[in-house]
Amino acid sequence: MDLLKVDTIKEARNKLARCAGIMPVTEYAELSGAAGRVLAFDIYSEENIPPYRRSTMDGYAVRSGDLGAAGDMIPTMLKVRGEVVPGTDSSLLTMEAGSCVYVPTGGEVPAGADAVVMTEYCEAFGDSMLAVSRAVSPGENVVQIGEDIAEGDILLSKGRKLRPQDIGTLAAAGIISVPVFVPWKVTVISTGDELVSPDTAPGPGQIRDINSYTIASRSKAEGFGIVRTERIPDNAGAISSALEAAKADSDVVVVSGGSSQGKKDMTAALIGKAADRGVLTHGIAAKPGKPTITGYDEASRTLFIGLPGHPAAALIVYEQLLIDLWRNLTGRGQRRTVKAKVSSNVPSAAGRMTFQLVKLKGDEAEAIFARSGMISPVSEADGYFIMRENQEGVRAGDTVEVFLWE
Amino acid sequence: MDLLKVDTIKEARNKLARCAGIMPVTEYAELSGAAGRVLAFDIYSEENIPPYRRSTMDGYAVRSGDLGAAGDMIPTMLKVRGEVVPGTDSSLLTMEAGSCVYVPTGGEVPAGADAVVMTEYCEAFGDSMLAVSRAVSPGENVVQIGEDIAEGDILLSKGRKLRPQDIGTLAAAGIISVPVFVPWKVTVISTGDELVSPDTAPGPGQIRDINSYTIASRSKAEGFGIVRTERIPDNAGAISSALEAAKADSDVVVVSGGSSQGKKDMTAALIGKAADRGVLTHGIAAKPGKPTITGYDEASRTLFIGLPGHPAAALIVYEQLLIDLWRNLTGRGQRRTVKAKVSSNVPSAAGRMTFQLVKLKGDEAEAIFARSGMISPVSEADGYFIMRENQEGVRAGDTVEVFLWE
Repeated sequence: MDLLKVDTIKEARNKLARCAGIMPVTEYAELSGAAGRVLAFDIYSEENIPPYRRSTMDGYAVRSGDLGAAGDMIPTMLKVRGEVVPGTDSSLLTMEAGSCVYVPTGGEVPAGADAVVMTEYCEAFGDSMLAVSRAVSPGENVVQIGEDIAEGDILLSKGRKLRPQDIGTLAAAGIISVPVFVPWKVTVISTGDELVSPDTAPGPGQIRDINSYTIASRSKAEGFGIVRTERIPDNAGAISSALEAAKADSDVVVVSGGSSQGKKDMTAALIGKAADRGVLTHGIAAKPGKPTITGYDEASRTLFIGLPGHPAAALIVYEQLLIDLWRNLTGRGQRRTVKAKVSSNVPSAAGRMTFQLVKLKGDEAEAIFARSGMISPVSEADGYFIMRENQEGVRAGDTVEVFLWE
Repeated sequence: MDLLKVDTIKEARNKLARCAGIMPVTEYAELSGAAGRVLAFDIYSEENIPPYRRSTMDGYAVRSGDLGAAGDMIPTMLKVRGEVVPGTDSSLLTMEAGSCVYVPTGGEVPAGADAVVMTEYCEAFGDSMLAVSRAVSPGENVVQIGEDIAEGDILLSKGRKLRPQDIGTLAAAGIISVPVFVPWKVTVISTGDELVSPDTAPGPGQIRDINSYTIASRSKAEGFGIVRTERIPDNAGAISSALEAAKADSDVVVVSGGSSQGKKDMTAALIGKAADRGVLTHGIAAKPGKPTITGYDEASRTLFIGLPGHPAAALIVYEQLLIDLWRNLTGRGQRRTVKAKVSSNVPSAAGRMTFQLVKLKGDEAEAIFARSGMISPVSEADGYFIMRENQEGVRAGDTVEVFLWE
């Protein structure tokens, strides 16, 4: 693999982004199941919320002008004209000067009233008179029509991953069917004569399959569907058959194929054969993560990605390349990072983007080193930071932006 | 509700934590479906990973002592004794002095060898001789037995929410059945004569149900099961029947019952009737969130929580009280917060914990105010910070810890 021919992560992602057929399609999801899905269009409100003036307190709807002189010493006396009953039509309640109407929290403020005075400043005399010991400003304790959501407002924008409160906002606006992106369907193929299932005791020279578990779990965490996970020996015919089969039912085919030169070459050749647009990226300028391969099959609209065998590299490259591609295509913003101070000097790889695992301790990021093939340091890490191609490492005390693993 | 009798959030949570029957039970989950679940016990490794010395490079396994003098100008010649084939037993390969064996990345380093030299420093002469132009240190490019995971190591600790790489670590150690906590099963009941379904156009005095959507979605995001969501008018008999029915099949019953005094009193009375241990907390010292009620039924092991009607308050109290109780009981740590500088002065409520919604803009937290009943500011917010009971607000530029909504 020639360093002159490798792509940066961004170049590799952009090549995939130009494969129009990979653009996620949209569907409508029922509101109660839409949390965690990504919004495919901007959503506008067709209504004013609240649709009527609403009290924020248990109190009496009043005309604020009537209470100009009200105070502890000399309360103002108002006539009680009735009570607003939630869920019923209050339009018949009249509010001429000198009168008031009881309104519970959330109740409609009757026409004619312009404020609500809290019950604790009120004292009833019989059924029909109220002594009020406090003046109120116009609009006090009243939510105006459309103050929460105005007709025509953008409620939520395209690319938003819907949170519980967003589901609440959509419910408030009466939007019960939500346009969302259909998550990619992913097949994960682990190749290697040495791989055995985790339920097996490895024999001499054998090792348990790790990457198909991490990559499938990471895919599911992003909302992707898993079509299947397969473990296949280093047999070109068997791998080719699996790639061909995956084209029929998968949007993305992930091949985790070891990091030795022979295996990298075989994975690249087989992706090149399965994909009618061929191999797009053969090697990326990243450490770890160099032996990464991508390809695209236009006829079946299938994206291929060959990941490094090193578990840390496989997971980080999958996030930075494929999951960030999904985020870009669906209009989501950058992933959130947190700032932290590095606790020791960390070298970078010359000419390559370097991913550095870290554990956070308060505001400090402590570098964790996962040698090739190791997985436990990846569990120990809280996330990673990036050193750019032309960056000569970081020094103890430098601030870095950490991509956090949730 | 008497301010003297209200609990702090912590007191309310501690009262619930002392209801032993609410302690989550454990079950075993299949590894491939365990991501996102919370580990119920510490997991120890019963094996060394890797189980053999593994090469981190494509190269030649050597005895480092043989290469003491090797360099660009005067390479050392070694006899090639064969090749390690991944997945096969390499124990028959011999490594006497002056010899070497080809090992691909991840392959087993044969007995007798103590280092691997990268292929780029090697040149083959025929099938059996190799010129090596670089010395290596003992152990160079070799992962030792148990260096990733040593037998007896704690792999992962109780209370951990399993991430994709943790699934990988468990796979590596051959742990295919994982002890996890059984998530609570939750019934969400919205009460109110004024509530209509989101698919309905509200009539005069009516409003669409928001809280059952936000609370059910938040529950699912935490991994809880939703038994059912119901919308019931302010009818004591109907609500009582729903509470009784929920005791039979739910661990947690959430009643979102409006914030007017009459509704609060009714919710408290009905929870008191349904729960054999009665009402535990009647009002919490929080703003927003005061009208919060909890109760516990020991016979059916059911926890009741009556939430404020205000959507922001309902969601925040549900997180701080119920979800943090779940986190405490399952041994998870505090939720992660991010530090940010407040962009304006923000007042606190005297004697009460104050929750302040914020939107993050870079390192700044901009306060967002949701008046009673409003939901769109909760969607706009990225999270919230807390001002303690005895804290007199924060000033512009002060640093606060923001609980982020994902």
